[in-house]
Formats: sequence, C-alpha cells, structure tokens
Amino acid sequence: MKHINFADIEQMEQRNRARLINSLSGFKSANLVATCSEDGRNNVAIISSCFHLGASPALMGMVIRPDSVPRDTLSNIEQMGCYTINHVSANIYRQAHQTSARYAPEVSEFDKVGLSAELVAGIEAPFVAQSLLKFSLDLREVMPLAINGTILVIGEIKHIIVDESGLKADGYVDIEALGTVAVSGLDSYHHTQRLARLSYAKPDKALVTLSIDS
Amino acid sequence: MKHINFADIEQMEQRNRARLINSLSGFKSANLVATCSEDGRNNVAIISSCFHLGASPALMGMVIRPDSVPRDTLSNIEQMGCYTINHVSANIYRQAHQTSARYAPEVSEFDKVGLSAELVAGIEAPFVAQSLLKFSLDLREVMPLAINGTILVIGEIKHIIVDESGLKADGYVDIEALGTVAVSGLDSYHHTQRLARLSYAKPDKALVTLSIDS
Repeated sequence: MKHINFADIEQMEQRNRARLINSLSGFKSANLVATCSEDGRNNVAIISSCFHLGASPALMGMVIRPDSVPRDTLSNIEQMGCYTINHVSANIYRQAHQTSARYAPEVSEFDKVGLSAELVAGIEAPFVAQSLLKFSLDLREVMPLAINGTILVIGEIKHIIVDESGLKADGYVDIEALGTVAVSGLDSYHHTQRLARLSYAKPDKALVTLSIDS
Repeated sequence: MKHINFADIEQMEQRNRARLINSLSGFKSANLVATCSEDGRNNVAIISSCFHLGASPALMGMVIRPDSVPRDTLSNIEQMGCYTINHVSANIYRQAHQTSARYAPEVSEFDKVGLSAELVAGIEAPFVAQSLLKFSLDLREVMPLAINGTILVIGEIKHIIVDESGLKADGYVDIEALGTVAVSGLDSYHHTQRLARLSYAKPDKALVTLSIDS
C-alpha cells in the first residue's frame, strides 16, 4: 500500500492533484442539469456532485464551482427558480461529457452536443429528451460555502418522469436497467452490474439478498 | 414514460417514497466512516453521501441524518476532530451494509460485522484494514442544514493509503480495479465496468478516449 501524506498532497502538480482528490469520494452520479434563462435560452451541463439530501421533503443538493462551466446554470436557476436533473445513460455519456466544454453563454449546449430539449407544460426548465429518469426541482437554497468558495444548491423535487420499466413496486428505481452511468475521477464513465439488493440490517439477524422486484 | 407529480410524491407510503427519492440522485459512493471515541471505542458506519468538495484544499463533504445510525460517528468526529473514510469493495459490501444495524453505542461494529480496525501512528481514528483506498480527515465544519435538520460535515484530507495497483501516473485512481462498489437507492450494491476515460472537452474539438494509464 502506498502512503501519501499531507506534504505529498500539497506538493503535487495541480491537475494531478485534482485527479487524485476527485477519485477519493468513490463513484459519483452522472447528471445533466438543464435550465432556461429569462430570455428563453436553454442550457445543459453535466454535473457529478448531485446528492440525496432527504426524502420528506424530497430534497437534492449539488455543488457548483464558480470557476467551472455551469455558471450559466447557476444564474438561470437563480433567475427562474427552477431546473431539471436528468440521468446520464450509457447511450449519451459522450454527449453529456461534451457539455463541459466552455461554450459561449449565447450558445445552447443542446444544439452543440446533440441532445434534445423536451418541454413539459407547467415546468419552466427543459428536460433532456434522451434521458430515461429525470425530474424537475424548485430552488430552495443557494448556500455559498466560505471554506472554499463553492456553492451548495438545494432544490425540492416536484415532478418525476421515469421509464416505467425501471420503477419497482416498492418505490426502488432500477437505474442500472435504465442504463444510468457512474463517474470516477474527472473523466471516467462506468456502467454497472448489480451485486445484490440487501435486506434492512438488524443487529442479530443475517442479511438476506432481496429480489430486484421486492 | 411515467409522470409522477408532486401530489403523487406527497401521497406515497413513507418507505416507498424513501426508496424512490433515494434512487433519483443516481449512483452513490459506498464508504465506511471509522472513528474512535475519547474513551477508545472504535466505531464504523456505512455512508453513501460522501461527495467531493474541492481539491485545493482537499475537502470532502458528507451528509449525516441525525435520526439514522451514525450518531456515534458524529459525536466521535466532534470529540476527536478526526475520522477516516474507507472505500467499500465488492469483497466487503455485505459486512459494510451490516454496519447500518442499530448496535448499542458500547458495541464496536468492527467486531460484530467482521471488519478489522487498523491503526496508523499519528492518526487518531482507525482505518478499515480490508479497504484498498482509505484516507484520514481533520474536521473542518459541522453545518446543520435548517431546511431538513440534516448535518453537513466537511473534512480536510490529510493522509491517503491506496493500493499501488490502482494509482495512475496522472493522479487518477482506478477505483474500479480496486473493486470499489457503487450504491443505488437504499440497499442495492453494484460493481462497475468502464465505458471510457474521456479527454477534457473543448468547444470545437472531438472527444478522445483516453488510456486508463494516461
């Protein structure tokens, strides 16, 4: 095993350090955040920092770095109070990655990368048509984190659109069957193979493998 | 495609709703947070909410729910100012899941589930011996989120221990080769297969698949 201490981390070349530290959290979600500006320009950006914050109310957090691409994303969210999150599946992961290029603000990444915006009546942000699991959120909080200048955005989930084949009777969504990918580091995309669904753990009870359809 | 609106979400049975909403963020990281109390009791708890917060300084966030098991985890972190995060690999995912059982505070989950605590000189929290990628953190912030009573814990990465086979020359860690698993929903574990590492995206340049060793 290799031991890397704090001085080693501090001395690493900046991009290598970013690759290393970005690998440490483990697998990350791959989502496209889609927004619309007040004057009607659609924007879509890949983000690997979405995380579950709570089920009741249904809240999701995401971290936005002010120095990275999704600046239009944040200003659109603040203008409109609404955005969508769309799972990246294996058939669109290259288009999704391409949205991280620094396109000019007047350019819609949808057109440039070959994704389609899909509008739903009553929701002011576009969805990604190709995505098989997507949901709209209303903005709840924009929280700058003083420790490093990143911004925590919290939204409440309002409207879910999911391919019915993935939705199980107990509420679980088989995102593997929908082709959702995972990210590692800054640039690696992975599909998945289920090991098992496991029963709720109790102190003196052995775990049981659940059926996917349980 | 099935449309689930806000009223549908509100009316769902509570556990089904938790399973649905927990599936929406996409794949989640699987980590064991290990701590030690002031009086020397080791504690280890699985957590799927770790997320990358920044590379310089090297920061990681995690969300702790006060009503779920890792309460000892939080009080130990606050007492000692130090904790470790240890990747869950396919060979220990069942033991890792079992740490979520509600053991009494005086019980060490290490003993109960069959994981081994590993001490490193100068670090006041134990590592999980079986984990092939693990790191220690110093506590930086404990931030209660008023919106739902969850707690955001932010730590700075101090010391990294990684199986050398996974560490690439450019800093990327091949966590797939190390067997790190991903989580979906509340209870599903997945191993991964790489689709590709992709080049840095630029507006007028086609993406290139990178070598894993690039």
